[in-house]
Amino acid sequence: MLESFNNLRLELRRGCLVLAVLAQLRSEQYGYVLRKALSDQGLEIDENTLYPLLRRLESQGLLVSHWREEEKRNKRFYRLSPAGEEVLASLLDEWRGMNLALEKILHGGTILAAKEN
Amino acid sequence: MLESFNNLRLELRRGCLVLAVLAQLRSEQYGYVLRKALSDQGLEIDENTLYPLLRRLESQGLLVSHWREEEKRNKRFYRLSPAGEEVLASLLDEWRGMNLALEKILHGGTILAAKEN
Repeated sequence: MLESFNNLRLELRRGCLVLAVLAQLRSEQYGYVLRKALSDQGLEIDENTLYPLLRRLESQGLLVSHWREEEKRNKRFYRLSPAGEEVLASLLDEWRGMNLALEKILHGGTILAAKEN
Repeated sequence: MLESFNNLRLELRRGCLVLAVLAQLRSEQYGYVLRKALSDQGLEIDENTLYPLLRRLESQGLLVSHWREEEKRNKRFYRLSPAGEEVLASLLDEWRGMNLALEKILHGGTILAAKEN
């Protein structure tokens, strides 16, 4: 049971992490700072998960990146692209819709909730 | 961009759908009624996705099912097992934590939010 819980938990986190990464990158950040910001919010993400995710989102055109020297080290800074902003807005709508649906299932009767739509 | 949005959207929905299915099966239901209840809440789920998911959750011990005749047809009724209740409660905690984190990222400063923890 513990294993199935962990799998379901990972499945649940996966989609949300993408949303959190996109939301966090509305302002430009480099990997370490991004990872720390997510972790400060309770969203721990492994480096081996975060960096491939950033590259994937960039290859999809949702992020842009460039290298810049800061404190004598070259760092790759990421931020949301205009296309990424649109996708983030749509995903947030989706997320809010799912939250609403889930709250209705948890607290409301089906018939009542259906009428509210 | 549309394709990457759809993939991210599916990824986001996947975890939430499991949560919705478990929450809905706190009371016993058969597949058709369950699917209709989810759809009434805006959570459309394909039969080819729902039925394998129900079997998977049952094989993990989170659901129990039995066949019963209703309106002269044999129907397989599912409901949450005691183990499923525990997993649902833990996943809901996880879900709420992620919501909180996401709201902080969207609306709050990182430093302020970190202090609130």
